[in-house]
Amino acid sequence: MAVIVQKYGGTSVGNPERIKNVARRVLATQQKGNKVVVVVSAMSGETDSLIKLAKEVHPEPNEREMDVLLATGEQTTIALLAMALHALGAKAVSLTGAQAGIVTDGIHTKARIANVTPKRIHELLDEGNIVIVAGFQGTTPEGHITTLGRGGSDLSAVAIAAAVKADVCQIYTDVDGVYTADPRIVPNASKLEEISYDEMLELAALGSKVMQARSVEFAKKFSVVFEVRSSFNNNPGTTVKEETSKMEDVVIRGVAVDKNQAKVTIAGVPDKPGIAAKIFKAIADANINIDVIVQNVSEKGFTDISFTVAANEAAKSAKVLQPIVKEIGAREARSTPDIAKLSVVGIGMRSHPGIAAKIFEMLAANGINIDMISTSEIKISVIIGLKDADKATRAIHDAFGLARS
Amino acid sequence: MAVIVQKYGGTSVGNPERIKNVARRVLATQQKGNKVVVVVSAMSGETDSLIKLAKEVHPEPNEREMDVLLATGEQTTIALLAMALHALGAKAVSLTGAQAGIVTDGIHTKARIANVTPKRIHELLDEGNIVIVAGFQGTTPEGHITTLGRGGSDLSAVAIAAAVKADVCQIYTDVDGVYTADPRIVPNASKLEEISYDEMLELAALGSKVMQARSVEFAKKFSVVFEVRSSFNNNPGTTVKEETSKMEDVVIRGVAVDKNQAKVTIAGVPDKPGIAAKIFKAIADANINIDVIVQNVSEKGFTDISFTVAANEAAKSAKVLQPIVKEIGAREARSTPDIAKLSVVGIGMRSHPGIAAKIFEMLAANGINIDMISTSEIKISVIIGLKDADKATRAIHDAFGLARS
Repeated sequence: MAVIVQKYGGTSVGNPERIKNVARRVLATQQKGNKVVVVVSAMSGETDSLIKLAKEVHPEPNEREMDVLLATGEQTTIALLAMALHALGAKAVSLTGAQAGIVTDGIHTKARIANVTPKRIHELLDEGNIVIVAGFQGTTPEGHITTLGRGGSDLSAVAIAAAVKADVCQIYTDVDGVYTADPRIVPNASKLEEISYDEMLELAALGSKVMQARSVEFAKKFSVVFEVRSSFNNNPGTTVKEETSKMEDVVIRGVAVDKNQAKVTIAGVPDKPGIAAKIFKAIADANINIDVIVQNVSEKGFTDISFTVAANEAAKSAKVLQPIVKEIGAREARSTPDIAKLSVVGIGMRSHPGIAAKIFEMLAANGINIDMISTSEIKISVIIGLKDADKATRAIHDAFGLARS
Repeated sequence: MAVIVQKYGGTSVGNPERIKNVARRVLATQQKGNKVVVVVSAMSGETDSLIKLAKEVHPEPNEREMDVLLATGEQTTIALLAMALHALGAKAVSLTGAQAGIVTDGIHTKARIANVTPKRIHELLDEGNIVIVAGFQGTTPEGHITTLGRGGSDLSAVAIAAAVKADVCQIYTDVDGVYTADPRIVPNASKLEEISYDEMLELAALGSKVMQARSVEFAKKFSVVFEVRSSFNNNPGTTVKEETSKMEDVVIRGVAVDKNQAKVTIAGVPDKPGIAAKIFKAIADANINIDVIVQNVSEKGFTDISFTVAANEAAKSAKVLQPIVKEIGAREARSTPDIAKLSVVGIGMRSHPGIAAKIFEMLAANGINIDMISTSEIKISVIIGLKDADKATRAIHDAFGLARS
């Protein structure tokens, strides 16, 4: 008897009809002879409503109390899903994060899972129940309610799968897997049958909406193989797992593009130690996340430092830097909108030299100018003009033979 | 430093503005040098919305899961009230029923409180916090979430007041105390300064909306003195406590009228053992609550049995009785609408004979016919025509000198 953990996100349980649909899928899984643990999110929109309510009583609500408030979202879903399963004649019991034994640290609104004690889950499974667990939430050892932050329900599912030693962990979402590129940009993009943790991590970091990096990291750490698939159809999804030697035969796994970027450049920076630290401390203090950083080679004792940020933080970044520019004796800080980051990901790069060269050639052949370059062991990112983003994505996708055959 | 427990119902916390208002009252109480524990209900309307949602996935939701669902209502309020208190600069921490140490039996949707372990409440109070506890809910020793049923938040407040040995327990509601009669019927009805548990219990049983009988019973059992008052003004309310000898000087405490009644009569019932049991078992099996029961003296081996029910259950009662009428060989079962139950309550009755006679005289003098009579040690109820209800209430209220001076 296999143990299967299934996770359904907010869209999949967004209203009573969809909850009933999830109940049918879950019951069908049990009826195939499996023990089933279901992890669910709050109904879509619910978390936003609660945050709105909180803001009406306090502009910056206390994080401990925010967790008490937000945890009601998933608690509502688990009860409704249990009822929907009962309506189908199934045995089902709901558990809050605390009841399921999900213990976290005390960092409210973005707690980390410390451990999962799956005793109660096992007991309920052994009694023939479908066990429904509230995702996104846990408890501290002292009994405070915590939540895990964005993508927390995926993390709950992976952690439970690790704790119950599940045979299968399925992450149901509104896309039916991981693609070689965004199908809205590249219509003949193909769904990947499998992908390594590291590649999935790069894609998550590149802004793929499929899954947050921390859940993938957790799965990698505890070797939890999981499958990303759609709750709206029965198509096979994409399996995320340890890399195999076969995976390296494929040169690149996919092309990702992030159009929500802006570039900030500080020009004429004196090339002295400690200058870069000053700049990035100011940015960090303003709570701005930076992405690609490039520093040109110094000429005549001056250099340019450029970095990218989310488009909606470009103005704030430039503003934050004004006093720093003065302080360090740089020429100016300016932001450039309308750029995109195109990234190519694949563990095959490690054993296939020359990928970067091929990408640069391909872009040149299409008349696309490269603004910045950043690479890791299994990823190459280039910053290009926003207007060129789709064309470049399609060209590279084709050049590496990723299209659906 | 006095310990004060305050309870605010659903109307008092019905929206963010009202929650802020409650926060101000609570903080003012603490600033007078008190330790404050606040017990709150779900925002008004919230529980009904959750029940509606449940019914959309299952016509008769499982009660364990219903409790998981409904408990989110108070959990939302405690977090919001904590935030509202923080906005005023107060120290405040919220606790769910389970976190507050409210342990119940396992009878879901109408659990009884088994014990309250106020360790955590005391710790938080000692640290200078206002402690906010979710009413209406608790946990079984095994960790299942339970709810206490109608009026459950009052019960939570009284139980916590008993456990923390509170100096004062205040039940804030949308009326500002207990009156000698319904002020809508008797404009010069006066607010009672104090009332005994037993009198309050009779009033609760008579359909007074102020408080459920079980909370009063609990308060009586643990000698918790509490005050019923309004959250919308600062008027003193009514204190409910052990009877004092002074209380007995007052002949009657109040007049209550219940217009939501109907009478069901089974005529021509053979006067044999076991017949009444058959009738009332059929009614009980149909989940119909009966109130006053009267059986006339038998004449020639036949008798009439009458009882009252809530008006909306009269038709169902008559229907349920049709097969029984046939089985026991009675003549017929019929229901009579448009009746009212008028009750006079007071522990003074015990030491003042002749109250019943005075009431009957008064009704006769006003040309009001009495249909049924039922008495207890501290209460006399009469069933009269609905059209006479208000007139009778005013006449009796005046006759016993209850009017505001």
